[in-house]
Amino acid sequence: MKHLGAQLAALGPGHAEIHVPFRMEVTQQHNYFHAGVSGAIADSACGYAAYTLMPADSSVLTVEYKLNLLAPADGEKLMARARVLRSGKTLKICAADIYVEKSGAEIHCATMLATIMCLPGKSDRPG
Amino acid sequence: MKHLGAQLAALGPGHAEIHVPFRMEVTQQHNYFHAGVSGAIADSACGYAAYTLMPADSSVLTVEYKLNLLAPADGEKLMARARVLRSGKTLKICAADIYVEKSGAEIHCATMLATIMCLPGKSDRPG
Amino acid sequence: MKHLGAQLAALGPGHAEIHVPFRMEVTQQHNYFHAGVSGAIADSACGYAAYTLMPADSSVLTVEYKLNLLAPADGEKLMARARVLRSGKTLKICAADIYVEKSGAEIHCATMLATIMCLPGKSDRPG
Amino acid sequence: MKHLGAQLAALGPGHAEIHVPFRMEVTQQHNYFHAGVSGAIADSACGYAAYTLMPADSSVLTVEYKLNLLAPADGEKLMARARVLRSGKTLKICAADIYVEKSGAEIHCATMLATIMCLPGKSDRPG
Repeated sequence: MKHLGAQLAALGPGHAEIHVPFRMEVTQQHNYFHAGVSGAIADSACGYAAYTLMPADSSVLTVEYKLNLLAPADGEKLMARARVLRSGKTLKICAADIYVEKSGAEIHCATMLATIMCLPGKSDRPG
Repeated sequence: MKHLGAQLAALGPGHAEIHVPFRMEVTQQHNYFHAGVSGAIADSACGYAAYTLMPADSSVLTVEYKLNLLAPADGEKLMARARVLRSGKTLKICAADIYVEKSGAEIHCATMLATIMCLPGKSDRPG
Repeated sequence: MKHLGAQLAALGPGHAEIHVPFRMEVTQQHNYFHAGVSGAIADSACGYAAYTLMPADSSVLTVEYKLNLLAPADGEKLMARARVLRSGKTLKICAADIYVEKSGAEIHCATMLATIMCLPGKSDRPG
Repeated sequence: MKHLGAQLAALGPGHAEIHVPFRMEVTQQHNYFHAGVSGAIADSACGYAAYTLMPADSSVLTVEYKLNLLAPADGEKLMARARVLRSGKTLKICAADIYVEKSGAEIHCATMLATIMCLPGKSDRPG
């Protein structure tokens, strides 16, 4: 996340938001944000949203996600907003929407469904 | 892809393979390859595999993909192998498997299903 | 859909809703609606929603979908509400939420993301 | 499954196969097998495959699946073959391929990735 210049812009019970400002390093040949960046920050936002509903010593593991790309991510800032749809003890089912901000307007450029696992008492496990 | 140090290791009709050698920049806190890297190179490998079955002036657009993470990507090299399952005129349905090489053994660490679109005669469109 | 007792309960530009009343034939061993029924009516609702934004002589083809199950579908009526997130010329990206009505309350029991293809001028093709 | 006329045709450690013979009740308007049937039997085959690797008193819960449709399911018999890709204690990640048999040949008509959960000691819970 650090290499992408990503910032945790909002965090609350069952939701999280991550922003990435435009930089050449996160774009593809047409100076749009790369789809891989959308996937990575949406996955991270889902993980943070899920983590807000877990015990403190838990760690977070992404089981799987699906990403649909809706429009080119052409703009100055990429934003992933995630929320927990279903909070089970072991699994949190999350949705994230990815928007790009261009000249003050927000364009809905991708959407994700993700399954996040809570690993209890394994706070040193890989995320 | 360049920022990830990714290399196109194999390419043929309906298949493609991309490798990423270990570097600190592509890992997470435990020095495993970051899941976002698995997603990004598997998506790219699917795009290349699909492109081999398209007319020369086409461009490639990822419509959607699903990624299941199977094991931590702990190793020296990450490899995504993609193949086209169904080659329609407009859509190519692709599968990719992601392996990590560790001490000479290959561990199956993720799997992807992706839908890739062929945009005819728009070779300058974003991928 | 007829065998499931499914009814098109709402239809408008970019959205559709399908209902299935409780019957023994659509349930599993615990008298909940079978997950396969949730998948089938959500897929159909996405197809109808997409079709509202296509030329009249088009036909609809499901390319793929992903379904997350959120809660047991325990109730008297199963309802799938679909909407088009992105309406391209060839592809419509749709989302559907599935609810079960029990004693007057609605429980969110599943969610779907689907990719629907528009086949122009092939109104006799299989859906 | 009974209403579909589905039969468990093969079962072994980490794999399962389900068959559905052609009947008018499981087809759509063009006498192809309905996509919903492919989804339902592939999901069930994944559940059975996962169950072979669980303790005897476990029950099986589908967390999510993704289905890609590859070709019309035009034939006399529909077959779903599932295998476990990754067998964790709590989650089994499964893949299934769906074939239709027509005049002795097999056509690959759909593919699925599914996440199946093991519920220990809850053998009376809904699947």
